[in-house]
Order: sequence, then structure tokens, then C-alpha cells
Amino acid sequence: MNPEQGLSNPGSRTRKIFVLVHGGAHGAWAFQRLASLLVQEGQHVIAQDLPGHGLLARFPDSYLERPLDPEKFATEPSPVARITLQDYADQVIATIRGLNDRMPEREIVLLGHSMAGLVLNQVGEAIPHLISRLVYLSAWMTANGRSFSDYMLAPEFSTGLIPPILLADPAVTGALRMDFRSTDPTYQTKTKAAFAADLDDHQWQAAANLLTPDTPAGPLAEPTTTTPSRWGQIPRTYISCTKDRAVPLPAQRRFIHEADQHTPGNPTDVRELPTSHSPFISQPEQLTQTLLQL
Amino acid sequence: MNPEQGLSNPGSRTRKIFVLVHGGAHGAWAFQRLASLLVQEGQHVIAQDLPGHGLLARFPDSYLERPLDPEKFATEPSPVARITLQDYADQVIATIRGLNDRMPEREIVLLGHSMAGLVLNQVGEAIPHLISRLVYLSAWMTANGRSFSDYMLAPEFSTGLIPPILLADPAVTGALRMDFRSTDPTYQTKTKAAFAADLDDHQWQAAANLLTPDTPAGPLAEPTTTTPSRWGQIPRTYISCTKDRAVPLPAQRRFIHEADQHTPGNPTDVRELPTSHSPFISQPEQLTQTLLQL
Repeated sequence: MNPEQGLSNPGSRTRKIFVLVHGGAHGAWAFQRLASLLVQEGQHVIAQDLPGHGLLARFPDSYLERPLDPEKFATEPSPVARITLQDYADQVIATIRGLNDRMPEREIVLLGHSMAGLVLNQVGEAIPHLISRLVYLSAWMTANGRSFSDYMLAPEFSTGLIPPILLADPAVTGALRMDFRSTDPTYQTKTKAAFAADLDDHQWQAAANLLTPDTPAGPLAEPTTTTPSRWGQIPRTYISCTKDRAVPLPAQRRFIHEADQHTPGNPTDVRELPTSHSPFISQPEQLTQTLLQL
Repeated sequence: MNPEQGLSNPGSRTRKIFVLVHGGAHGAWAFQRLASLLVQEGQHVIAQDLPGHGLLARFPDSYLERPLDPEKFATEPSPVARITLQDYADQVIATIRGLNDRMPEREIVLLGHSMAGLVLNQVGEAIPHLISRLVYLSAWMTANGRSFSDYMLAPEFSTGLIPPILLADPAVTGALRMDFRSTDPTYQTKTKAAFAADLDDHQWQAAANLLTPDTPAGPLAEPTTTTPSRWGQIPRTYISCTKDRAVPLPAQRRFIHEADQHTPGNPTDVRELPTSHSPFISQPEQLTQTLLQL
């Protein structure tokens, strides 16, 4: 019908499905600009709120009361405390299976940000044959048999800015808890520095309005299994955010080093972005170009 | 390659692009579940934050200070007051043009929720040849030459629950202003009743956390032009939310009646959902099925 259709669709045979998995405290909203840019390039994109996040978030009562009672906020049990890593993985696996059934002609790229590196480990190990590439975006690509928590005291993480902004003991509340509605300028400055120092204050206020206080702590204590014969067979990219203060650069490099030792025949494809932990907000165009080149 | 590909893709030739435009106070996040369900059906979907919304939101300082100073909140000029209806329309038009260039083989369905009915009027009139269907989701499908504001005192709107929750005079601040962080149980109950009475309290808290206080007032005073020869040529659907308390059912019916009088040869295709103003959260599966049938 349209004689130019072939010309205007040079990449139609290599178009992919991007499954985007957000990190702790975030929701699918984080990928709004990235998803739009990818869709405008003809890519198929799905981003879902993980259990306990975004439109599925739950809040401690004390977060919704102001002024904040710091004592109550520090001790109130989290309504998301029972969520497990398998809950996250089950959602993503079901999504990928459904997409593969419906569009078997498209390759599936699974991207995870930050904490969602754990989800990529778990999902990659479960259904390696359905995933054409894993993309860890400044993510917790923890080594085989290790958990998120196992790394917390390692020297590579010592400059990380998340621990200083936690306002409750995860062992008491069952969550990593932050106050994105804080009226304390010092605390506001710290949270912006941790997540998104390269945003202007207005952009950060908009992001902070969408963030949620409680990230379930359970998944962070669960070791993930990543075997060379399953997870290790999937091509993987690590997009390293070089100005990240949530997952410091030395920590990112340790994850890459450990993975490459584990699967020497399948080394990590490493890309760098000169951004904070939130390139999907601060540099979505650059992030999109990086993904289109994979 | 896959002998079942044809069978598993029975609708591949009729797959569409859905462009989803959110309403006031909302962002692209509102469509998270709807978009995911449509994408899983093989549809191409794009949802963007309009200027002044979602990740592009701006806040009056008083909203971010707690306890809230009601006097200051009632009078502080809005940082989004200068946004125009053309700003909204320009974004959507650029998106549709880009998608049509990239994927000319796919029909484009443009859906607008609530206030975004004004955007559909403006965009439909500007580029009718690029849109295969307009879908007004409990939206302000205002009549030719009329503005949102022209309807505010009409009897069909008298039971609407938005005006009672506005906390500032739009003529003073330049915005419709609401307090989604209110700690007043009565006010919380009123906002839920206005937007989403069919959500449970936890779902509503998660949505309220994502909503933003200021919706630019300027676009609401601008009359839109919808001529029979341009806007009136586009097939249009009105999805009527029968339990809506933000845009009451009599108001929805008035919009439909006026449009049908304006384009008698192209009557509105009316569908009903037994939901509040927020079916993308309360009944996303039903809404998805409705859209797939268009």
C-alpha cells in the first residue's frame, strides 16, 4: 500500500520487546520518558509496578500523618514486609511468558534498575531460553549464592548514600524506609544526592512525589542462584552510571568482575553513562540510544 | 520459522497504536495497568506525562510544607499557571506525527481521560487524517466553540464532587488546586469519592501519592474548535463511566448529545463501564476489553 513502508521501517525485523523492571521505592512511572522514546522508535515496551510499589504501594500510617512522628516512623511494621523476591520474579516471568506466546517473533530484552538486579538474576535463571539479553542498569547483579545484604558492609559500598537516609531499622519494620515527604532541607538534599544529583530541584521534587517510603526488606536478604548453564548463557549488558551515589561505581565494577569470573565464556558487555542513579529521568535520550545499540 | 506464528497472531494485521492522554492531576502512571494489558495483547502503547504533570509536575511551596498553611495554599501563585491547551496539544501532535512516520502501517487510536477531552478536541481538529479513532474516557468532550469553564454552572454538573475539594480560587492561583497529602479524614474521604469510590482505601492511598496538586487553569478557559469537516470526520467513541462523580453521568450524556447534533452523520459510539472516574485503576481488564473491541 505504501511504497515507502520498507524504507521507513528499516529496523522492523530487529524490533524487540523491552521489559523494564524498576528498583526499590520506584514504580513503572520511573520509565515514562524512556518507554516513550523506545516506543517512538518502534520498540514494544512494558513496564509494570512490582508488588508493593507504584499503584501497588502500601504505606505505614505514620508516613501519611504530619508532622511526622519520628519514633513511630522508625518502628511501625511495614505493610509490605511479607513481599518476597519470588513475588517479584513471578510477576516478571508471567509477563515474559505471555509476551513470548503472543509475539514469538520478537526478542525479549529484560532490563532491571538498582534492586531489580536481583529480579533479573532470579528470572534469568528460571527462563533463560525466553530472554535474548539481560540489561543491568546500575543494578545489584549479585554473585551466585549471595544476597543484597551480603554486600552492604563491603568497602565498595562504603560511599553509598542510601544507608544514611534510612529512617528505620529494617529488622524492626521489615522495610528499607525513607521519607520522601520530609520538610527537612538537609534530609531533602541527602535524598536527592543519593538518587539523582543530576536533576534540577523541580525535577527532583516531581520524582520525590512519586517515590514510596517502604521497600520490602525480605528480598534483600535472599541469596539468588545464577548457574553458568542457565543464567550464564544469556548475553548480558551492564549499564554503568559513573556518577551514581546509590550504587557506587566500585560496587558496580565488583558485580561485573564477579559475574565475569563466574561465566568467563560470556563476559559482561559494559556501557557507561555519565549520570546519577536515575538516567531514565536525567538522560533518557542517551539511555535510549544505548539500548537501541544492543 | 514458527509454524504456529500465524495462529498465535490472529490479529496482527489489525494491531493498533494507542496514544493515552491522562487527565488533570494525573500522569502517565495512571495508565500503568491498562498499558501493560494492551501491550500484552500485542498493541503498541504510548502514555506521556503532559506538561505540568507526573514527572513534569511543579508544586506550590506551600504543598511541600507541613503542617499545611491553608491561607498560603489558597493564594500562592501556581508554578504551572502559564501552561496552555496548545502546549498539551503540541506534545500529542508531535508524538502522533512521529509514530505515523515510524509505523505507517498501524492505525492510531487517541484516548483521553477527563480534562484530556479538551486535548482530543484540539488534536483531532489539527490532524484528523492521522487518527483512526478518538476515545473519550469520561472526558470533557466539550462542544464546538465552548470551553471547560462554560459548563461549570450547568445543571448536569451540579452533583460533581471536584468543586467542593478545590482549596484555592483558580482566578487567584492559576490552577485547580487540591491537597492529596491532606491529613483530614473528611477531606480524604471527599477526594476518594470524587475520583475513585470503587477503589479500596489502600489502592486509593497509592493513587493519591502519585497525584499532583496543581492542574493549570488556563486550558480550562480556552474554547476549542471542532468542525464537522475535520474533527467531525474522525470516528469517535465515548466510554461512559456510569458511577463517575467527577464528571457526572448527565454531563457525559450532554457532551454526547451535543456532539451528535454537531455531526449527525457520525454519531458517537457509546460504551458503558460501571465504574468511578478511574477505571484504569479499578477495572483495567474491562477497560482493556472495551478498547480491543473498537
